[in-house]
Amino acid sequence: MRQAGRHFLQIPGPSAVPDRILSAISRQTIDHRGPDFAKVGLKALNGIKTIFKTESNVFIYPASGTGAWEAALVNVLSPDDRVLMFETGHFATLWKKLAEKVGIRPEFIEGDWRGGADPDKIEAYLSEDKNHEIKAVCVVHNETSTGSVSPIAAIRKAIDNAGHPALLMVDTISGLASIDFCHDEWGVDVTVSGSQKGLMLPPGLSFNAASEKAIAANKKAKLKRSYWDWEDMIGPNETGYFPYTPATNLLYGLNEAVDMLHEEGLDNVFARHARHGVAARAAVRAWGLEVLCAQQGQESGVLTAVMMPEGHSADEFRATTLKHFDMSLGNGLSKIADKVFRIGHLGDFNDLMLIGTLSGVEMGLAKADVPHKAGGVAAAMEHLKTASSGA
Amino acid sequence: MRQAGRHFLQIPGPSAVPDRILSAISRQTIDHRGPDFAKVGLKALNGIKTIFKTESNVFIYPASGTGAWEAALVNVLSPDDRVLMFETGHFATLWKKLAEKVGIRPEFIEGDWRGGADPDKIEAYLSEDKNHEIKAVCVVHNETSTGSVSPIAAIRKAIDNAGHPALLMVDTISGLASIDFCHDEWGVDVTVSGSQKGLMLPPGLSFNAASEKAIAANKKAKLKRSYWDWEDMIGPNETGYFPYTPATNLLYGLNEAVDMLHEEGLDNVFARHARHGVAARAAVRAWGLEVLCAQQGQESGVLTAVMMPEGHSADEFRATTLKHFDMSLGNGLSKIADKVFRIGHLGDFNDLMLIGTLSGVEMGLAKADVPHKAGGVAAAMEHLKTASSGA
Amino acid sequence: MRQAGRHFLQIPGPSAVPDRILSAISRQTIDHRGPDFAKVGLKALNGIKTIFKTESNVFIYPASGTGAWEAALVNVLSPDDRVLMFETGHFATLWKKLAEKVGIRPEFIEGDWRGGADPDKIEAYLSEDKNHEIKAVCVVHNETSTGSVSPIAAIRKAIDNAGHPALLMVDTISGLASIDFCHDEWGVDVTVSGSQKGLMLPPGLSFNAASEKAIAANKKAKLKRSYWDWEDMIGPNETGYFPYTPATNLLYGLNEAVDMLHEEGLDNVFARHARHGVAARAAVRAWGLEVLCAQQGQESGVLTAVMMPEGHSADEFRATTLKHFDMSLGNGLSKIADKVFRIGHLGDFNDLMLIGTLSGVEMGLAKADVPHKAGGVAAAMEHLKTASSGA
Amino acid sequence: MRQAGRHFLQIPGPSAVPDRILSAISRQTIDHRGPDFAKVGLKALNGIKTIFKTESNVFIYPASGTGAWEAALVNVLSPDDRVLMFETGHFATLWKKLAEKVGIRPEFIEGDWRGGADPDKIEAYLSEDKNHEIKAVCVVHNETSTGSVSPIAAIRKAIDNAGHPALLMVDTISGLASIDFCHDEWGVDVTVSGSQKGLMLPPGLSFNAASEKAIAANKKAKLKRSYWDWEDMIGPNETGYFPYTPATNLLYGLNEAVDMLHEEGLDNVFARHARHGVAARAAVRAWGLEVLCAQQGQESGVLTAVMMPEGHSADEFRATTLKHFDMSLGNGLSKIADKVFRIGHLGDFNDLMLIGTLSGVEMGLAKADVPHKAGGVAAAMEHLKTASSGA
Repeated sequence: MRQAGRHFLQIPGPSAVPDRILSAISRQTIDHRGPDFAKVGLKALNGIKTIFKTESNVFIYPASGTGAWEAALVNVLSPDDRVLMFETGHFATLWKKLAEKVGIRPEFIEGDWRGGADPDKIEAYLSEDKNHEIKAVCVVHNETSTGSVSPIAAIRKAIDNAGHPALLMVDTISGLASIDFCHDEWGVDVTVSGSQKGLMLPPGLSFNAASEKAIAANKKAKLKRSYWDWEDMIGPNETGYFPYTPATNLLYGLNEAVDMLHEEGLDNVFARHARHGVAARAAVRAWGLEVLCAQQGQESGVLTAVMMPEGHSADEFRATTLKHFDMSLGNGLSKIADKVFRIGHLGDFNDLMLIGTLSGVEMGLAKADVPHKAGGVAAAMEHLKTASSGA
Repeated sequence: MRQAGRHFLQIPGPSAVPDRILSAISRQTIDHRGPDFAKVGLKALNGIKTIFKTESNVFIYPASGTGAWEAALVNVLSPDDRVLMFETGHFATLWKKLAEKVGIRPEFIEGDWRGGADPDKIEAYLSEDKNHEIKAVCVVHNETSTGSVSPIAAIRKAIDNAGHPALLMVDTISGLASIDFCHDEWGVDVTVSGSQKGLMLPPGLSFNAASEKAIAANKKAKLKRSYWDWEDMIGPNETGYFPYTPATNLLYGLNEAVDMLHEEGLDNVFARHARHGVAARAAVRAWGLEVLCAQQGQESGVLTAVMMPEGHSADEFRATTLKHFDMSLGNGLSKIADKVFRIGHLGDFNDLMLIGTLSGVEMGLAKADVPHKAGGVAAAMEHLKTASSGA
Repeated sequence: MRQAGRHFLQIPGPSAVPDRILSAISRQTIDHRGPDFAKVGLKALNGIKTIFKTESNVFIYPASGTGAWEAALVNVLSPDDRVLMFETGHFATLWKKLAEKVGIRPEFIEGDWRGGADPDKIEAYLSEDKNHEIKAVCVVHNETSTGSVSPIAAIRKAIDNAGHPALLMVDTISGLASIDFCHDEWGVDVTVSGSQKGLMLPPGLSFNAASEKAIAANKKAKLKRSYWDWEDMIGPNETGYFPYTPATNLLYGLNEAVDMLHEEGLDNVFARHARHGVAARAAVRAWGLEVLCAQQGQESGVLTAVMMPEGHSADEFRATTLKHFDMSLGNGLSKIADKVFRIGHLGDFNDLMLIGTLSGVEMGLAKADVPHKAGGVAAAMEHLKTASSGA
Repeated sequence: MRQAGRHFLQIPGPSAVPDRILSAISRQTIDHRGPDFAKVGLKALNGIKTIFKTESNVFIYPASGTGAWEAALVNVLSPDDRVLMFETGHFATLWKKLAEKVGIRPEFIEGDWRGGADPDKIEAYLSEDKNHEIKAVCVVHNETSTGSVSPIAAIRKAIDNAGHPALLMVDTISGLASIDFCHDEWGVDVTVSGSQKGLMLPPGLSFNAASEKAIAANKKAKLKRSYWDWEDMIGPNETGYFPYTPATNLLYGLNEAVDMLHEEGLDNVFARHARHGVAARAAVRAWGLEVLCAQQGQESGVLTAVMMPEGHSADEFRATTLKHFDMSLGNGLSKIADKVFRIGHLGDFNDLMLIGTLSGVEMGLAKADVPHKAGGVAAAMEHLKTASSGA
């Protein structure tokens, strides 16, 4: 039976793609070596820099975010290099496994999955590394599995305090264009991101922003690479072209996305996500449930991970909301599987969509007989109406 | 500044068009005289009959609903014919004015705009017309300006009880495909409808369903007509063609719409609208406001018209919700201008969208300083979660 | 079996709709009473004036061109008014029949369907009408059934020479935006057009441009009208609105179409159609066939009607080209049925599409065993390459 | 200035994307972990096997074809492995360079770029490799830079004749779905392809088909890999899922593409491309120019590479056709730069589009003052009309 109305795609990415972008990606493909393409390519390459807030290079891959993770590592590191990573959650763990597969040696500062990476621990760790064998510090900015945000500027400071030359590499796949990120100002060397979150695109594009220091490291890095190699990109990118066939139609979408973000204003975009995070957490607390992120000030505006009451299955609850209210929620991953559900509130999203979303959770909790108090939606409305988005 | 997320188009039509239909209408136009067109045309002509629940003719016009109103009258009536109309609200009044313009003489049973047409009054009126000078009774099924539904089957019975040969002509422009309508079973002679409401299409198509009695009347009707003339349609329609260039792309959309309605199941469609009507009225009452429709059992599942508290402007309130929550609500029309606002909950719509909509009203009332109690959204959720749409 | 590649829709309208317009019409429908609509409506109402080349009113109908024909007549005439029409072909004949149906008395100057309306005959006819009983002269600018163009400015002059006050009413349904048309400069009182030809839209919108004299006539015209009535349009149109629900999505397309025409430049659009007409006729003559239009200087740039050799069926030939080469050609209508086929070369069209089209005709003639000489395509290329469209 | 009509995208890929596919890729993105996705994923994974003609695994990457080249190598080979490649043209050369970058040792049988890979030379080469140090033979099926086709079945036989265990790896990026390819029947171990050629999709997806022998090799292959690793794909693919976020919208397009290919019938698709190749070469020869592929029976149905007369620049000619006739042609690459232009006639293409294309070349040659004889278009028509595509 057909379900009426719009599906609520409230996983923490892919986010629902706005019509303008769907329309853009359905424009006819053009000659990627012809003169008209240069305009598309230059607009994309320059536009994405304004989102990463960098004047350095941003490389665009026809690939998922996972590919850009790999690209970041293989472009600046050599076999058996040591790197420091921080266990903020599932995605930090996946990046670590990937590092092992490509032939480097990640070391992991353990975490409890309830907050961002800890600058103090990083500083302490690096201070021990007198010989500067650690070549890079890799952290996840917005941990999609937990809804916690790592303080990137503070981590940069921690590295500097330790007097350590390691590169700072950041995954902001799910943070970019939803919460503020400043590649240059924060002194990040390599930033990894993807298309299907704050950029509001379908999946299929991913990015590496690279500082001058990273570009220099690339020249000496000995990990084997071809598809991901920045070096081959730099020349063609200067005139708007790519060394191999780019994903032209997704680039159309990227250009539309960057326009839309600037039409709204990046600061407004960030404020909107922040407001929605506050409202969502107000709802969770009113329901008598617990937000997974336990670090005040590190809760994400992108998603809210919610802990299920003991003895109740998050996945059964999610199946119930999907069946009765046509809403997809994010699942708990690996060590928090079935114990957590995640509410995405990112991308092209507004107050009424958020209330619709939270009402689906509240009614879904009731349908699934999960113990909770009513009043979450009311609490969220209370926040939204006093901190309104309107002009 | 760009507003993020989807606009909530909660006027009582046009309703938000689902992606499948937008995609259908953007297919390439084809030769309307060629063999491929016959498939499109026959599917449309046969499909729309299943929605009107008729085995008689349905005529499809490239025109707004207003055009189909005119078509209905000019096809079966002659200059100076008397017709009986019932003042259910603004649209009944407009139809009456149109009748005057095309040269017939409408007589109006006055109404208070707070309920449907009254079969008893119609029976009484017709009983007075001993010479059967009244040629047609014209009523609005779902009065879009008030949210009241007229009992069509009972009106048919009233005409029969009066032993009167008048044609029964019904406007279900905003009712069709949202609330049940049975052209044949209810003995309607001419039904008028349009594309942009329950059919979920953009505006631009409208319809006349005509009984055999109406087709017979057409042959004697002397009002001048060309574009609207059924007679020229019948022949070409038999093989899927039209006497003049049809609105091919909207026909693509119509075919998609009919498929979608049957995929959901018409009874499910009607039940969904009814549930949403109940939930919306629960919200209105929880706010301490009054629903315009005062006749129990005649409240519409398509829209809910809400009376503003004395001394408050409905239009200012609507402007506030538009500005702060990017939601369009319907205005009060003519005699209830600025005193009523209308919440559309029709078309491709679901529970979470309804809650989003009602939250926009509730937060908008607060923003606009309209006296009300909170709790409308909670009341609506209470209804929805116990009378769930899920399988 | 699916046919690969693009269908060649070479009927003289609807013309193939460009992607930009298909994309525009698939944008979400908005509130036709809300503030955002005014921008859409004003852009449409002002934009279409630049295409009719008028500073007077242009009325936009959700209707086929046939509706705009009716609108033109009923807005300025009264029952039993005499009007003069000229038999340029099938569509002039249809317009005459429509005039009869709406209750006026058309008089027809006969024609041989091989040229445009003759100003001298019109002048002579009007000169006989000493009492000025003829209220309007109605001519078809671009006769879609024959490919002949009437000299509108000369007809205006003919009316003036006769010292006759009749209104000049022109159908340029298939001429507008393909061949030059100057509503104001040429002194036309009412111009009728439609969306699906030079405007490159799907069918579903049609137009009346009205001079001040026509607007004055409207006030006294006694033919019954409601849907078509200009009077109700004027007020709402001033601020970008319409008296009834407009075909919003087609208006999106209209705005895109007007932009596209001006991006190309109207003079370039006209020159392109003229070049293609010359090339098409060169092909026809090289095949040894005859162009239907026999009046030098009146051949249309919109379409070329071709006479079949005696004893050969144009419709069989058209069926052959459709089957083997997936191209739709226009048929011969009424008195030239099966004796003529029509090649549309209008709308969003270019040199290579024209050669593809003509090659389909040339190969189709061979497939259908129609006597002809090869070399039509070569002749067309000869013209195109020496009179190139390039910058 | 806007150019009217459709751009002729006649490079040998990306090919012009049909509307059905553009519409498919613009559908809303869904949860790639939810139940509805499994249907999309399974349809894609099973559907693409019918195009490769394999019952083994096909892996789908969100990546350009270049990525799938890399994937093929790193999945089955170990550092410093020797592989045998054949210099069919530019793309064979690029694949060789890529092999060097990922850390294996390609050996190159030189070629003159005017034909496919030579089975005899491969057999001779392998026969010399007594110790079976060569781990794979890599050949390009349809060399996009030259328009030559390698005889894959014969190459398989050559390897077998040499009694050599090397894997057979084939790039059919531009051949798949345009010319016949039989992964299983021809005994190919790894086949590489991409989305933007015969599959008619935009660029952004690429493929590896892998035989059981290749899957076995994967388990021992020591080249580092993560993104490209088949091993992680196999499990999730069984139920229609992917180990990382797939390019959902391009998968929608892939499913549409596979449907379209089967609606036409693969054999009809291949016959169509073959007919167009014959017609294009007839045109080239009539112009008095030379086709680059000099091996009879190895000319491609996908594209025709044409040698410019001595002293004339292919790139200037291409610029002329682009400017005057809005058609993009492929350029000569590396050693044949500026000496060759390439006419793509692949993907969603038909007879009239081919004639339009060839007319653009013929008129472009005239415009650019390139010595040639007229009559190419006529020669192509002569072939097409006698070997018609129609039912």
